[in-house]
Amino acid sequence: MLSSSNARLAAARRLTRRSARRETGRFLAEGAQAVREALAADAVIELFATADAMARHPDLTGGATEIAPKDALALSETVTPQGLVAVCELAQPSLADVLARSPRLLAVLVEPNEPGNVGAVVRTADAAGADAVVLTGGVDAGNGKAVRASAGSLFHLPVLTAPVQAVLAGGLRTLATSGGAARDLDDLSDDGTLAGPTAWLFGTEAHGLPEDVLAAADETVRVPIHGRAESLNLAAAAAVCLYASARAQRR
Amino acid sequence: MLSSSNARLAAARRLTRRSARRETGRFLAEGAQAVREALAADAVIELFATADAMARHPDLTGGATEIAPKDALALSETVTPQGLVAVCELAQPSLADVLARSPRLLAVLVEPNEPGNVGAVVRTADAAGADAVVLTGGVDAGNGKAVRASAGSLFHLPVLTAPVQAVLAGGLRTLATSGGAARDLDDLSDDGTLAGPTAWLFGTEAHGLPEDVLAAADETVRVPIHGRAESLNLAAAAAVCLYASARAQRR
Repeated sequence: MLSSSNARLAAARRLTRRSARRETGRFLAEGAQAVREALAADAVIELFATADAMARHPDLTGGATEIAPKDALALSETVTPQGLVAVCELAQPSLADVLARSPRLLAVLVEPNEPGNVGAVVRTADAAGADAVVLTGGVDAGNGKAVRASAGSLFHLPVLTAPVQAVLAGGLRTLATSGGAARDLDDLSDDGTLAGPTAWLFGTEAHGLPEDVLAAADETVRVPIHGRAESLNLAAAAAVCLYASARAQRR
Repeated sequence: MLSSSNARLAAARRLTRRSARRETGRFLAEGAQAVREALAADAVIELFATADAMARHPDLTGGATEIAPKDALALSETVTPQGLVAVCELAQPSLADVLARSPRLLAVLVEPNEPGNVGAVVRTADAAGADAVVLTGGVDAGNGKAVRASAGSLFHLPVLTAPVQAVLAGGLRTLATSGGAARDLDDLSDDGTLAGPTAWLFGTEAHGLPEDVLAAADETVRVPIHGRAESLNLAAAAAVCLYASARAQRR
């Protein structure tokens, strides 16, 4: 019994590495909020909890395996672990599945490199009523920081991986964000563009979108900068764009 | 000479603590982008640079004091310090000064507790063309993480501290964000409210605004949640609200 639980713990610990997440399709969700959403989404394969966490969250930890605080620390990517970690597996639809359901709004992160941004965009996309988030590579959605920043939203809407070419060929109007674009978000709100089904493409904060993606998208768009900032951060830009679409699509 | 430079380095190192920043009115700005903006704003009291950083940024480090890599690490709040740190002092206007200039848009963070959010809102407020950011206490704008997240915007617009009561009595329409508000951002865009001079009040992500602030504000407003997210993160909510005002004020 003990050795089998140790082996399961070791397998869980490996999920802090991306290679193990890719191999197994599993990831870790830490803390009461994430675990609650994971349980509601029927995504929990196994739950580990310290005695403390079991006492604090009896509603969540019925089927949990007890672990020592030092094991909770090893499973955690935070300095103050909550003592509650779920091994999760989420059946995500393919991009073809998502497109078959006539989506209105997609958020597409092209080769994202910052886990906190990935999670923040997943949360914002959920709030804005997007149909799915697409990652084209880079940071994966199961990254510990990304899961945490998504604040449970990872379990609310499809978050899938697909090549950017498949999005570009997917039939939605593709809007590529670029600080150098001639037209800004207000222009697209005014001319009705945002009212139609839209896939928003976001690049990295430092490098933006690759040239070939900018060239292939239906439009390039900038968020207007009214002050002296060079740019918005990615999560803020995504919030402004996705909410502009949400508003335009509901008028 | 050596001992005097050591003493200045020790004084700089103390600025990683809030109490020393409050006492002296000084703070640290790290990295090429922040240092460049600090120099442009004439805010640099003293500049420390490693030999490496001097070689990489000869344009910035003319008057710099050379420090060892281990000293750069002690001045830094990141794990990979850039070897370039400025001691800064910014003359900020008072709230009365700001109000005397007939501002159109203020972002007010009521007792913020997350440095990254403070910096992100400063950056977004700058981008949205806000006239100033007001902090009512809590995290200070000179916090290392806040300076970094502001991406230079701290040097672009006034970021000052004032009691929330002074903002509420300041004559701008005060809009207090609250997930439980009856009216949402789209309602206020539609009825013309957002076109007038506005002070947006934001609380903390976990607790929102205090009841007395919600009661005293001219209106309470929620950002609409179209999906299943419980809420937006503070930086995303601020981005959506400030950009809604920027658009309404420019139509």
